[in-house]
Amino acid sequence: MKKFDHKDILELPDRYRAKLINSLSGFKSANLVGTKLDNHTNLSIVNSAVHLGATPPLMGLIFRPDTVERHTLNNLRKTQYCTLNHVNTNFYEQAHQTSARFPKLTSEFEACELTEEYLSSVDVPFVKESNIKMLLKYVREEKIHENGTHFVILSIEEVHLNEDLIHEDGYVDIEKAQTACISALDGYHSTNRLARLSYAKPDKLPEKI
Amino acid sequence: MKKFDHKDILELPDRYRAKLINSLSGFKSANLVGTKLDNHTNLSIVNSAVHLGATPPLMGLIFRPDTVERHTLNNLRKTQYCTLNHVNTNFYEQAHQTSARFPKLTSEFEACELTEEYLSSVDVPFVKESNIKMLLKYVREEKIHENGTHFVILSIEEVHLNEDLIHEDGYVDIEKAQTACISALDGYHSTNRLARLSYAKPDKLPEKI
Repeated sequence: MKKFDHKDILELPDRYRAKLINSLSGFKSANLVGTKLDNHTNLSIVNSAVHLGATPPLMGLIFRPDTVERHTLNNLRKTQYCTLNHVNTNFYEQAHQTSARFPKLTSEFEACELTEEYLSSVDVPFVKESNIKMLLKYVREEKIHENGTHFVILSIEEVHLNEDLIHEDGYVDIEKAQTACISALDGYHSTNRLARLSYAKPDKLPEKI
Repeated sequence: MKKFDHKDILELPDRYRAKLINSLSGFKSANLVGTKLDNHTNLSIVNSAVHLGATPPLMGLIFRPDTVERHTLNNLRKTQYCTLNHVNTNFYEQAHQTSARFPKLTSEFEACELTEEYLSSVDVPFVKESNIKMLLKYVREEKIHENGTHFVILSIEEVHLNEDLIHEDGYVDIEKAQTACISALDGYHSTNRLARLSYAKPDKLPEKI
């Protein structure tokens, strides 16, 4: 077994440390965030979407202090709205390409050959190719002063998906929807469901449902 | 396409809404959090671990306001330390079982047949069966007042893993480590890596690396 302590980690070369530490949380969600400001659309991949609660329905997103995602965060602060679109396994390369540092007025939709779609009364682009998509509204943000990142809390305003992805109990079959997941910064994966397990109770083992 | 708006979501039955909304962020990380207080060990599965930054190395965890995870959060606040252990596909059922509401003084290690391991000078249990494990130290927390959840920021103090899981550039092959991922609240998945993609640049398409 290899052991890194805190000091070892800080002494690693920057890029090596970034890849190592980005691997440690486990598999990450893969989403595209769509925004629009002054008639220019923007699309960026994020691996930091996290469930914050169902009542009210909230989503969290973490934005780095000085990356291409700034366009997205700035647009979101100004317009209050974005879309969140699952990355599917059939377009993960195009989704990854949205992380290139395109000039501010270049739309990543066009540059990466993904299709804008307008499904809401709010003028913000969804990704037509994505099988599960949401309209999110900015609620507020917390600055993580330790490293300058921004933890943004958003309200889920709309959900769009095919009805046949939803099980009777509300579970959405995101594997059937071909949702991808991410390891570290650049690994893309499809999944194989092992099982759904019953609600855990102390007196019996969980069952496959 | 089925559309739910914010009002539709709030009107859904509670359990249906919880499953639906928990599905929407995409795939989630699967980890076990180990703590120890007054010589009693505690272990709980979390699907909310999120990378917060590499310099300094930080991890985020979201704790619900009133669940079995309270034991973990209380222990963490009091002792300042916990372990984070990847759930592997060969013990996901035992990991899920830790979410049952065991009495406070029951150790989930024993109840779920997982093995305590002490790898650090800090008296906090790791999960022997897990292939990637960390010692984390409490930094601070933000209350998400919209729903009473707690967003806890932790520092990565130690990382323990087999050296053959680490690629030359620092990427950790969490699929080779048999790390599982989660859909919604109860779906467990193994993965198939489609590719690692090169750092995206505007003038060329990403390559498989």
